[in-house]
Amino acid sequence: MAETPVRFGVLGCANIARKMCRAIDLSPNSILYAIASRSLHKASRFAEETGFSSPVPKVYGSYEAVLDDHDVDAVYIPLPTGLHLRWAVLAAGKRKHVLLEKPAALNLSELDRILEACRSSGVQFMDATMWVHNLRTATMRGLLSDSERFGQLKSIHSCFTYEADRNFLQTNIRVKPELDGLGALGDIGWYCVQALLWAADYSLPKTITAWPAPDINAAGVILSCGSCLRWEDGKIATFYCSFLANLSMDLIVLGSKGSFRLNDFAVPFRENVASFHVGSQFRVPILSEETVASDLPQEALMIREFSGLVLGIRENGLEPERKWPAICRKTQMVVDAVKASIEMGFQPVEVGT
Amino acid sequence: MAETPVRFGVLGCANIARKMCRAIDLSPNSILYAIASRSLHKASRFAEETGFSSPVPKVYGSYEAVLDDHDVDAVYIPLPTGLHLRWAVLAAGKRKHVLLEKPAALNLSELDRILEACRSSGVQFMDATMWVHNLRTATMRGLLSDSERFGQLKSIHSCFTYEADRNFLQTNIRVKPELDGLGALGDIGWYCVQALLWAADYSLPKTITAWPAPDINAAGVILSCGSCLRWEDGKIATFYCSFLANLSMDLIVLGSKGSFRLNDFAVPFRENVASFHVGSQFRVPILSEETVASDLPQEALMIREFSGLVLGIRENGLEPERKWPAICRKTQMVVDAVKASIEMGFQPVEVGT
Repeated sequence: MAETPVRFGVLGCANIARKMCRAIDLSPNSILYAIASRSLHKASRFAEETGFSSPVPKVYGSYEAVLDDHDVDAVYIPLPTGLHLRWAVLAAGKRKHVLLEKPAALNLSELDRILEACRSSGVQFMDATMWVHNLRTATMRGLLSDSERFGQLKSIHSCFTYEADRNFLQTNIRVKPELDGLGALGDIGWYCVQALLWAADYSLPKTITAWPAPDINAAGVILSCGSCLRWEDGKIATFYCSFLANLSMDLIVLGSKGSFRLNDFAVPFRENVASFHVGSQFRVPILSEETVASDLPQEALMIREFSGLVLGIRENGLEPERKWPAICRKTQMVVDAVKASIEMGFQPVEVGT
Repeated sequence: MAETPVRFGVLGCANIARKMCRAIDLSPNSILYAIASRSLHKASRFAEETGFSSPVPKVYGSYEAVLDDHDVDAVYIPLPTGLHLRWAVLAAGKRKHVLLEKPAALNLSELDRILEACRSSGVQFMDATMWVHNLRTATMRGLLSDSERFGQLKSIHSCFTYEADRNFLQTNIRVKPELDGLGALGDIGWYCVQALLWAADYSLPKTITAWPAPDINAAGVILSCGSCLRWEDGKIATFYCSFLANLSMDLIVLGSKGSFRLNDFAVPFRENVASFHVGSQFRVPILSEETVASDLPQEALMIREFSGLVLGIRENGLEPERKWPAICRKTQMVVDAVKASIEMGFQPVEVGT
């Protein structure tokens, strides 16, 4: 008999939940089992609207109810960041594996409490940063790791910006200190930071210096900011994130012998094919385009990866994979350091280990 | 009778001079009239090898001899930066119009002496930054200036890097303090800086902060560096230049409503057609490619522009165009400030006006 797929419960009906419910449905080793909202009516309507191939999911009028459902293996938590600590810790306490929307937490201290709860319960933790699961990302990693084609990593630049409208800038959770207090830094800077760390093979920079003149709203929430990261070996990386500029998702990675760049690193323009442009010693000056096809969109690849780990734990008694909480923790450390540098008047901040 | 074209004298047989001699030949309002080297033999061989449509140019065994030739209207000076002050001032003194290879000078003080010599002799000055004369640049300016399509300028990033080989890093003039003391900052950072200023419509930033950890050789010459520029209105720009990384010439310009990026801003991959990728509020998320064709390569467009100004002065008694020395001076100011910030331990440097 085939394994029972991972049964997901989703806490909340945020917009992003729609995309993720589809991804849970598309992934071959998971099903959308239950959806909760603080309003049962809202949850029911959401469940009806999803309309995927799985049986219609159960609906619950409270988040607690999903956590109390013994058939739920894992939860996806798309709640505002300010609620992550409470619900991720509760979920881990109920031995639910935790897929947590980014930014993972308001700060490292909160994240560490979440990670400790997951560790002590033996459940898998992963933050829901999708692009690292894209097949293109693995192909780019192959290039990065190729000492002949790429050489030594020298410099990285990433940006993620979008133009929020007036209504967003006044009412969205992403500009409210108690809900998503990291603002643009958490919402989109998170992707930039993780991209820089990814390129550096997840080694931590030594110092982080925020650029002057971030945009900050009246409540103290970051609407735009940038930063420079310096590694001990001299590598330099920069990123810029903003709610106040036209959509951009550029990533430029420069090595001593090769380079690559893409304009859609976080959310590829197309779901089933993604490309990047490669510079090489052997083909100067024109760049070559490398294209990577995929049967599944990157969010479904993420669910498949996460669910595979959950099944390994559930069916085979494996330990949770430590790579994902470690990457998340480093991302949060850098995000925290950027915020600290801004608060300290753009002084360099050393990153602990 | 058609106007006599501008008769160019070229001081030195540097590699770049080959490209520029062809450009002088291609431009409809100029001819390559004379070539000088400190070695008459070298100048003669160079003149023979050029083999363009013009009559074979005169050859001189000294730079002075070109300046003393009354038929020479203008000189192109591709000498090492450390020699610019001497030869540009001498040329202006002989009432030759001056097209000066970049970086224009080792510092603003030297540049100001060159500009004063040109001003007092009534000759045209221009630095030989080619890409600003590309037709693509004008098309991008159109987008930048369009408040509906682009909105307000928010952020700019540029990089220009190439991998110099061991021989270059030991012997090239670009790593010798007395010849090209600005190193990578002058050779390729110049383009990045001028691109940032161009995007900001040549308004000067308020502060400039160099990134930590530049590569600097034993003689104190910069091999790689980066910097963050901040304008009073909150605009932010960054650039990175290096002799130690694979070829890159990326420029990303983000506005509130639109954006564009290109991978070959300084030297287009193809001579007669160039493109850039535009982001728009109206077409999300995919970028659209805009392509601009040209009959002439950008260096010939530069020569045509410069020669047009020279003819205006020679034939019609017009005043020299002040825009070009002004742009050059601002570029030099920013380059100087980056160097100062590095020397001051990466402190912010205020830019005078």
